This record gives sequence, C-alpha cells and structure tokens, in this order.
Amino acid sequence: MIKAIIAYDGSNYAGWQKQTNALGIQEVFERALQKIHGEFCEVVASGRTDAKVHARGQVIHFQERPDIHPTQYKRALNGLLPLDIRVQSCVLVDHDFHARFSATGKRYDYICTLNKDDPFSFRYKTVLMQPVDLEKMKKGALLLKGTHDFTSYSSCKIDPRKPRTKTIHSIEIQEKDGDIRFSFVGTGFLRYQVRMMVGTLLALGQSKIEVEDVQKILDRKDKHACRFNAPPQGLYLMEVYYG
Amino acid sequence: MIKAIIAYDGSNYAGWQKQTNALGIQEVFERALQKIHGEFCEVVASGRTDAKVHARGQVIHFQERPDIHPTQYKRALNGLLPLDIRVQSCVLVDHDFHARFSATGKRYDYICTLNKDDPFSFRYKTVLMQPVDLEKMKKGALLLKGTHDFTSYSSCKIDPRKPRTKTIHSIEIQEKDGDIRFSFVGTGFLRYQVRMMVGTLLALGQSKIEVEDVQKILDRKDKHACRFNAPPQGLYLMEVYYG
Repeated sequence: MIKAIIAYDGSNYAGWQKQTNALGIQEVFERALQKIHGEFCEVVASGRTDAKVHARGQVIHFQERPDIHPTQYKRALNGLLPLDIRVQSCVLVDHDFHARFSATGKRYDYICTLNKDDPFSFRYKTVLMQPVDLEKMKKGALLLKGTHDFTSYSSCKIDPRKPRTKTIHSIEIQEKDGDIRFSFVGTGFLRYQVRMMVGTLLALGQSKIEVEDVQKILDRKDKHACRFNAPPQGLYLMEVYYG
Repeated sequence: MIKAIIAYDGSNYAGWQKQTNALGIQEVFERALQKIHGEFCEVVASGRTDAKVHARGQVIHFQERPDIHPTQYKRALNGLLPLDIRVQSCVLVDHDFHARFSATGKRYDYICTLNKDDPFSFRYKTVLMQPVDLEKMKKGALLLKGTHDFTSYSSCKIDPRKPRTKTIHSIEIQEKDGDIRFSFVGTGFLRYQVRMMVGTLLALGQSKIEVEDVQKILDRKDKHACRFNAPPQGLYLMEVYYG
C-alpha cells in the first residue's frame, strides 16, 4: 500500500470527497493516478475536508502497482496534479494500513486575523471585525479539552453506530502579528466540530457569550445547541497521527 | 483630491485597467465609488499593473465630494469592494496631485520560491524548478542598476514621445526560507520591465546565460533582444514615491 501525505489549497474545491455536481479533490487525485496506472484506482483519505478547507498534512492511501517504484509516485503525481494539490511524500507501507481506520489522532489549525486591510487573507484566514479577548478564549478552551460527547459541537446527522465521544488532547491559542491561530490535537473530530468550537470561542472572545455558556452548550448534547460556525477558509488539516 | 493607497490580490483580475471583455480592478473600484458618490467618478492610478500582478501600495486619486469627509472614504469603500481589493488609507491632498504624473519613483518586488511542494504558492510566488546562484544574479543586477535605455527589457510598442531611459536606484536580492525576493526601486519602469529583468536574472542564476549577456541584451536597445519574461503572479507593486 502507498501512504501519501498531501497538501492542498481548498479554495477552488468542493472539499475532499467525490461529488456528482462539484469538483472534489479526491476526483482530481484519482484522475492523476489513473493516468499513471492506466486504470482507475481508489484513493482513501484519513477523512473528509469540507469545501474551501485547506490541508497541509492530509494522509491518503492507495494500492501500489508492482511495476512502479514507490519513490516515483511523488514526482509523477506532482507532474499531473494542479498546482493547488501537492504531494509531500509517498512511502510504501504494510498492506493493512488504512488512512482512516489506522489513524489515532489529528491536528487541525484555524487561523483568524485582525488585519482587515490585507487583500491576500480572504482565502486563507477568517477576518475578525472586532478584537477578541485571548484569555477568555483560553478559559473556554479548557472546558472543551478532554473526553466529551461533542454532539452539540457538530451538525452531522445522528448516526447511532458512530461514537460521538472524542478526546481533545490540547487546544492552543496564540496571537502573532495580528493573526490568531487555534491548534487542536485530538483523537478525531466530528463534522464541523473544529469550526463550531472556534466559532463558539470567538463569540466568547467577543463577549457575545460567557465562559459558562461553552460548558452549557457542551452539556446539552444536542446538535442544535450551538449556533456558531466559523467559516471554512480558516481551517487547515495539519497532521494525521498513526500508531 | 483624494489620494488613496490600495492593495490587491490580482489573481482574479485582468490587471488594473478597465477593459471591454475582462474585469479590471479600476472598473471594480469605480463601481464602488459610484455607489458612494451617486454618480460616476474616474479613478486614476500611478500606473497599470498587468493581469495577475498584485499590489501592496498602488496609489490612486479621485475627485472628492464636498459632502463626504475624507476619513469616511476608507470604510465606505472597503464595505463595498470585494475582499481582494482593500483600501489602506485615504487622505485629502492638493488639487494638482496626480497619481501618475506626480510620482517620482516606484518599488516593485518579485517573489520566487524553491519550495515546489507548497500548494499555497501558485498565485503569489513563481515556483523555481532548479536552484539559482544568488551571487551570479547579484552581479547581473549590478549591470542593470543606474540610468539606461531599457528598450531591450520591455516589450511595449515603441512610442517615440515616451522616454525609454529610466533610472534604477537599487536592486536587492535576498533568500529566506527557500523564497527569493527581488526588490527594485527606480524612477519608473517600462511595461514588462521588472518581469523581463527578473526572467533574465533567473536565467543567469540557472546558468542558461552568462553575466555579460545581461549587458549585451541591454546594449542592443531592441525590444526583441530579451526572450525571458518571468510570470505575473510573483510581481508586487509595493510603493509609489512622491515629491
């Protein structure tokens, strides 16, 4: 099996997943791989990313061809892929490696900026119209850290077969040169979870809600409990952990 | 007269100038201003920028309306303009100020990168497929510094009324984290001049030509003499100088 780390600018895509009426990154990748293999080969990612969401360290796997050396894949794929999807590395791994099922954790970053006058931000950062209280946001983040049922901070359909309890190992919030970067490391995240947590922490930082509301929302375990959802362009899948 | 400094991401535009069958930044700006003024008002820039070229410090002027305070323009314009065009500042200046004719100099930067695997570069940096010899490029740059007839490093139509002699005060070339930044300060630049100078210096840095070829091309004073033209997405109009 080939395990590849890929990075992409999600601006022009409808997310990772193949879709019938919009272009997903998966489809673009599978087309490039098909040119190399001469036949279709499914590509499986560690998880979906939504439309306009970026990745610096998405992990995928696909079945290698015996006549192609693993080290040839990176150059061949980058020669065929558009410039906003780049393979960072390709390695041969055990046949039972699975990009999604073998993953033990993920890191997502979310970038906001207080610089309203930068025309280069809009695809890559969420522009904040009001200043935020960093210390308040850090207090709110402490409540989200740990193992919780994150139903409230998600908006997926409730699927009783899928666990809604996840563990967040760490949440860091740092400000540098007017940019605010949130960094979440955890066992896994529900759909929209990072964006809804960021949206809630920003609402807290802008005094639209209080610290205890972060806990109240969490406790409700209701997918309608949270009305904050930060926009997709600030979100980056940074790393997927295995083993 | 209002003098405004504006920045833009040129990726989605056919350049500054209004065009019949493509969208120029000027047109977008004049539409926004028309909404504020209630009538059309021409906007004049320090000079054109070509399709996909960016600006961090383009200067424009337009006739103010007596009922609008100069400080109100920035907020009003940024509220109406798309996010890839941002007003940095607006000040009231003398009525004889002219963004183009009053300009005494300009600074252009050009950014290349050796990082082929970054999916976020392609709109903002020119990706180099081979390493470059910085010291060689600096030697070549010394030949371009000073006052010269730059006909060879331009591809405009020859207009005998327009002087083709320009003075370049400084050319800096710096490498940082795999990015190479060229910085040109001069009295003014002919069309494509910066991109053709960068293209030539990169060819020199990649040993496609020799240092003396930079001089030979310059000496020919022939618009067909230079066959190198760096792509537009690496170019930034950084600053326009007055007085």
